[in-house]
Amino acid sequence: MKLSDNYDKVGSWLSGDGPQSDIVISSRVRLARNVKGFTFSAHSTVEQNQHLLTFLQSKVMDSALQDKVYYFCMQDTSDIERDLLAERHLISKQLACGSGPRGAIISHDESLSLMINEEDHVRMQTVASGLQLKETYAILAGIDDLLEQDVEFSYSKQYGYLTACPTNVGTGIRVSVMLHLPALKLTGQMDRVMRATKDLKLAVRGFFGEGSEPIGDLFQLSNQITLGKSELEIIDELITHAIGPIIEYERYARQKLLEDEQSMLDDKVYRSLGTLKNARLISSEETLLLLSYVRLGIYLGRIKGVTIDTVNKIFLLTQPAHLQYLYDQTLDTQNRDEYRATVIRKYLA
Amino acid sequence: MKLSDNYDKVGSWLSGDGPQSDIVISSRVRLARNVKGFTFSAHSTVEQNQHLLTFLQSKVMDSALQDKVYYFCMQDTSDIERDLLAERHLISKQLACGSGPRGAIISHDESLSLMINEEDHVRMQTVASGLQLKETYAILAGIDDLLEQDVEFSYSKQYGYLTACPTNVGTGIRVSVMLHLPALKLTGQMDRVMRATKDLKLAVRGFFGEGSEPIGDLFQLSNQITLGKSELEIIDELITHAIGPIIEYERYARQKLLEDEQSMLDDKVYRSLGTLKNARLISSEETLLLLSYVRLGIYLGRIKGVTIDTVNKIFLLTQPAHLQYLYDQTLDTQNRDEYRATVIRKYLA
Repeated sequence: MKLSDNYDKVGSWLSGDGPQSDIVISSRVRLARNVKGFTFSAHSTVEQNQHLLTFLQSKVMDSALQDKVYYFCMQDTSDIERDLLAERHLISKQLACGSGPRGAIISHDESLSLMINEEDHVRMQTVASGLQLKETYAILAGIDDLLEQDVEFSYSKQYGYLTACPTNVGTGIRVSVMLHLPALKLTGQMDRVMRATKDLKLAVRGFFGEGSEPIGDLFQLSNQITLGKSELEIIDELITHAIGPIIEYERYARQKLLEDEQSMLDDKVYRSLGTLKNARLISSEETLLLLSYVRLGIYLGRIKGVTIDTVNKIFLLTQPAHLQYLYDQTLDTQNRDEYRATVIRKYLA
Repeated sequence: MKLSDNYDKVGSWLSGDGPQSDIVISSRVRLARNVKGFTFSAHSTVEQNQHLLTFLQSKVMDSALQDKVYYFCMQDTSDIERDLLAERHLISKQLACGSGPRGAIISHDESLSLMINEEDHVRMQTVASGLQLKETYAILAGIDDLLEQDVEFSYSKQYGYLTACPTNVGTGIRVSVMLHLPALKLTGQMDRVMRATKDLKLAVRGFFGEGSEPIGDLFQLSNQITLGKSELEIIDELITHAIGPIIEYERYARQKLLEDEQSMLDDKVYRSLGTLKNARLISSEETLLLLSYVRLGIYLGRIKGVTIDTVNKIFLLTQPAHLQYLYDQTLDTQNRDEYRATVIRKYLA
């Protein structure tokens, strides 16, 4: 376990140094794969799961990746540690909360993670700062190829890769970006964006993916179709028809705010910063809301003296499991709100 | 006109140095008088009003008070100047917004003011910091005696002093205190206090007296009965049955907050200070609300580095007319909110 080395740093995907990262927080690509000759997870026994876990773990840990990754056996980690990995978007909540033999292999810089025995046998993802879907996919395709040298995945000539859920059959790909859209939200244009993305058959989700509500003006946009198109076609269409135009709208809305509503903008931005600097009790939801405006204020040059790096650190480290890991104890809501406020003041001091 | 010398200072009543001024902002006593031989204001002509104004002005300005007071002729002052005097509680809104010959005589330290041709011929008031009703009344009784050396007031042996409105007949006295009750408000006990004061036939009003809603946890408590009791009996009963117990309840509620709810208390207090220090647009209503918590925080020793004097200055000087006087222009709401925020940041820097 190397959580203790990493938990108070942000992963490379949250470094804020990628292209267009003033609007695109991160790009993420995930592939779903299942191993030929092993029963699909939904119907497998604990022994079969353990067998698969041992098999895949050894394949990855003996591969060229071995010096770049950590292995986490889920049964050997605490609830708080698993929640912490989920808060860092390295494993899914489903893997964190599941039961039975399951594991995660995570690269030191947190740009790559593989989950074993989640919904599929393997779910692998790469993630990077800013808009880098093609680059991110290229890296993941390389990992996929590397694994396929040693492991044969279930594949149908007619359908492509076979997956536990039919929505993933074909490429098994999910491509997503986390967008920060405070100006579209502030100017009441998010409904229009939501309708357009629905027409394009894209999914819009919150910070924590499936089932989570958008919060802090963060919207996760991803493809829903995995069949009948190549991976690069899926990525191209997502960028051309959705991400590109949304970035343009958000940038325009920000410019209009700067030109026409500077007092209102500054008021929101500075009140948010003032509250973060002074609160003694604060929920994670309010923290995300306030950080959203501070982030906007920094990118629009309205706030000096607070860096995006600080915002991203607060963003990540004030989540419940991170707080409990830091203070090495289980905390109830009131205590978390108090400790969260303390951590925020420390970073903004 | 000496407004320009005084407008950016607080009057002595807002100095915060009186007894119990952590809870009792100020004590105020007012007497209503009418001059024998002159028609009551409701039925008098403009010429009669002018005659009365000239008569009373000369009596006061030739008296022993002459070196301690300014005279303001209402017809010669601008709307903003009259509103400014009302915001300083030196004249009533009725006098400020009225028409015809009317004036105000105000002592340099703003502890004494006389309004001529308001509802009654003369309304005189003295005001002091903290709980000083008897002292304040003694000063006003002295002024009343001084005037009676030269002026005969309408007086009935049966009813006492005659006034324009029957509710003031008798002593013509109104005794009031401005109370700051944030802890009773925070702990949901204000309804009980309000019911008790109603049973005692007392009036509870907001910062601006009659017709104004309580705001910023400030409550103005005053007698309604002026007939059948002496002035000192009225004051004694108000202190014994209402002000004294309310001070005790508020002090107890503050202590309980400190002991049992320190995080919640600090959160409210510091968020308020943070918002005041950072807002770029702020209404006068929100300003009063936030100042209320900052005031509480200072008196409970939770905030260091901000003085009550600063709070009182912001409290007074960010009112609409004061802002417009300072910036020497008529300001719309949005501009006022912007300038108000600027003034607050300056004082809290």
